[in-house]
Amino acid sequence: MKHAADDPPTTAALESDRLARVALTWLTEPGNRSVFELVESHGAVDALALLRDGGAPGETLRETVAARLSAGDPLAVAAQAMERADRLGARLVTPADDEWPLPVADLRRLVLTGSTRRVDRETAPPICFWVRGGQPLAETLDRSVAMVGARAATEYGVHTSTELAYGLAERGWTVVSGGAFGIDAAAHRGALTAGGLTVSVLACGLDRPYPMGNAALFDRIADTGLLVSEWMPGADPLRPRFLIRNRVIAAATRGSVLVEAAARSGATQTMHRALAIARPVMVVPGPVTSVMSIGSHELLRQYPEARLVASTAHVLEEVGRIGVDLAPLVRGPTQVRDQLDDESTTVLEALPRRGVRGVDDVAARSGVAVRTALRKLALLEELGLVIQRDDGYALSPVTPTTAPGTPVDTTAARAHRGPPVPPAAGTAAVG
Amino acid sequence: MKHAADDPPTTAALESDRLARVALTWLTEPGNRSVFELVESHGAVDALALLRDGGAPGETLRETVAARLSAGDPLAVAAQAMERADRLGARLVTPADDEWPLPVADLRRLVLTGSTRRVDRETAPPICFWVRGGQPLAETLDRSVAMVGARAATEYGVHTSTELAYGLAERGWTVVSGGAFGIDAAAHRGALTAGGLTVSVLACGLDRPYPMGNAALFDRIADTGLLVSEWMPGADPLRPRFLIRNRVIAAATRGSVLVEAAARSGATQTMHRALAIARPVMVVPGPVTSVMSIGSHELLRQYPEARLVASTAHVLEEVGRIGVDLAPLVRGPTQVRDQLDDESTTVLEALPRRGVRGVDDVAARSGVAVRTALRKLALLEELGLVIQRDDGYALSPVTPTTAPGTPVDTTAARAHRGPPVPPAAGTAAVG
Repeated sequence: MKHAADDPPTTAALESDRLARVALTWLTEPGNRSVFELVESHGAVDALALLRDGGAPGETLRETVAARLSAGDPLAVAAQAMERADRLGARLVTPADDEWPLPVADLRRLVLTGSTRRVDRETAPPICFWVRGGQPLAETLDRSVAMVGARAATEYGVHTSTELAYGLAERGWTVVSGGAFGIDAAAHRGALTAGGLTVSVLACGLDRPYPMGNAALFDRIADTGLLVSEWMPGADPLRPRFLIRNRVIAAATRGSVLVEAAARSGATQTMHRALAIARPVMVVPGPVTSVMSIGSHELLRQYPEARLVASTAHVLEEVGRIGVDLAPLVRGPTQVRDQLDDESTTVLEALPRRGVRGVDDVAARSGVAVRTALRKLALLEELGLVIQRDDGYALSPVTPTTAPGTPVDTTAARAHRGPPVPPAAGTAAVG
Repeated sequence: MKHAADDPPTTAALESDRLARVALTWLTEPGNRSVFELVESHGAVDALALLRDGGAPGETLRETVAARLSAGDPLAVAAQAMERADRLGARLVTPADDEWPLPVADLRRLVLTGSTRRVDRETAPPICFWVRGGQPLAETLDRSVAMVGARAATEYGVHTSTELAYGLAERGWTVVSGGAFGIDAAAHRGALTAGGLTVSVLACGLDRPYPMGNAALFDRIADTGLLVSEWMPGADPLRPRFLIRNRVIAAATRGSVLVEAAARSGATQTMHRALAIARPVMVVPGPVTSVMSIGSHELLRQYPEARLVASTAHVLEEVGRIGVDLAPLVRGPTQVRDQLDDESTTVLEALPRRGVRGVDDVAARSGVAVRTALRKLALLEELGLVIQRDDGYALSPVTPTTAPGTPVDTTAARAHRGPPVPPAAGTAAVG
């Protein structure tokens, strides 16, 4: 939205912005990077005006816009969509709203090289969401994990995704999926069974969730969780839209779990988006005799960043705030350090007593890979032992249990910078 | 054996060396590092004399030797073992024999830190092998893969190991295992069914292969493949011996495949030995619902070096000579490069047109991990595209298909140093 920072927008301006955003998603489809950039630089209202006047950058986009304009007036279509959403009990959420999920902005840097397919180019952040359900969107997605996989799932896959989703929901994590048959539905159901939150990100209008066979499931999800879509009410579930939708599942969550995937499945495509924006990518293995695990195993073979997970605990290890999810009994600095595995201890010791050290240097001194150092530093940060600075990481001056504003207890601070605590027995290598 | 290099040992000296080696394995058990080092520096005959005279380094070893000496004369025991082996149709193989498998020398550098257990310290190279079967030992082990796993294997594990062993044996690879129930037996059987070679490395005398329930299998193995042991005929299958034996399975092969393992299984211990001497470590995943895959998944989670494999082709990719095993139709330099995956191409391009470049530098320039660079360089070397030098790697001056001694065709050499060939379609990323 375009307005001076110290001059709050009027209600009318806000409403125009909202209508323009809806009109833009109809005129050009969500995910278009040129459109997103126009909205960023000129605001939605001016971006819409520019496109209507034939000023779209690029011939393809100009042609798309012209074709749509011949079918109707974008603002009239948008106004109708708003009315339809009202009747449906759905709402529009834009970046101006408190419940806008900020992490989707990471899609700015989602560039999938090596592909000329349209769905691999249309990966810009969303400009608005339609939402059905009582929960606030951003808060619901704050602690969330995506779980995706094959529609033609096996009994093993359905069982495993149900169990994992149940376990995550039980620990207060939101399970996000795409509402498809198979793994998606099993993940939603597992979370619902645990009495937890689940979000279905759809690729069509919220009044016609696809597939129809899951209609009862979608109603249950909307009752306690959320149905979300970038497409206005009435929009058809066209095939490319599923792939364009997948980037939202990858970006709106803390990490993505793949349960079953045949070779070249749509679910592995979601994982590639998660990899491209450096979200944790987790893969549940399966029998090598199952065609529905071929895609999963290939992902594990091809990407060292992809982590094999076999349990809820493994998933939480990747996405969790260790202090909250893995070690609820942690109380003092000594206990916190007792919980550390060998690598975390080594990484912690590689930080200087004063000042900041870059990640590469920390990795080199601790003898671990850079990506391991990054993961361990993130955990140490969650534990309050380490602070991230612009130019690297530093030891935290306060103990993890010191409340904000409490004077620093230098004794305790010195204690947790002291000699390394032996690793806990539970972290020893197998064998 | 101790003798001047230009003064070939007499038959009598050879025989004394052989007897002394056998006596030493009885007196102190195989794998003892002090004993191995004494044999290396003084020869087996003098090492035996030293131990008999109470000169063993370390009190524990002195006590072990004293206890054994009170039970018999080591040379007399050794002579009896030789006679027993003769009657059995077994032979003794020592480093003086052509069929001695040289790769077991890599056990010199097998040091398992962090463990005080005896089986983790007794990891020195073997000093002799008892062998039953018509094949020459070294040649049989030259192209070999170890396949290990749980005794209490599931049907899935038995099926998978049989299939993998069949596939490897069919491609001319020897399948090495430990003769136990479950995965071991399935691996041996798969290789036998393919009409291929299989080797069972035992932890007891060859006249009493353990377990007795596999007696018929052992006879079949000895008919076409080999039964091998470091322990003399009559030796009992004591529990620590299995773990000490495992280092030989890891070191005598080009890589080890783990098919099923519960948490803390003996099979994962073999894999740790393979990791410690940098042999390829491969793990077949399974359902996360199976307790018999917990150890396998933990290995994959804990060690980035461990590679998930789901097929014979995956195993061959890790251990195979690509030119022979993966790309039999490769004929010219252009075809060779066509076969390369993206990473191999990048690594190849990171080499200088003239001169040598170190591995670290190659890894940095090609943007891959050092261990990936090493693996790809090894493949490129097998393909004849790259030559290893003392201080790094260089482009090969001749084309891979040029026979040794053929004058260098500079046109072809220039061609294969030319611009990168696009990767083959088959290597493209999934999704």
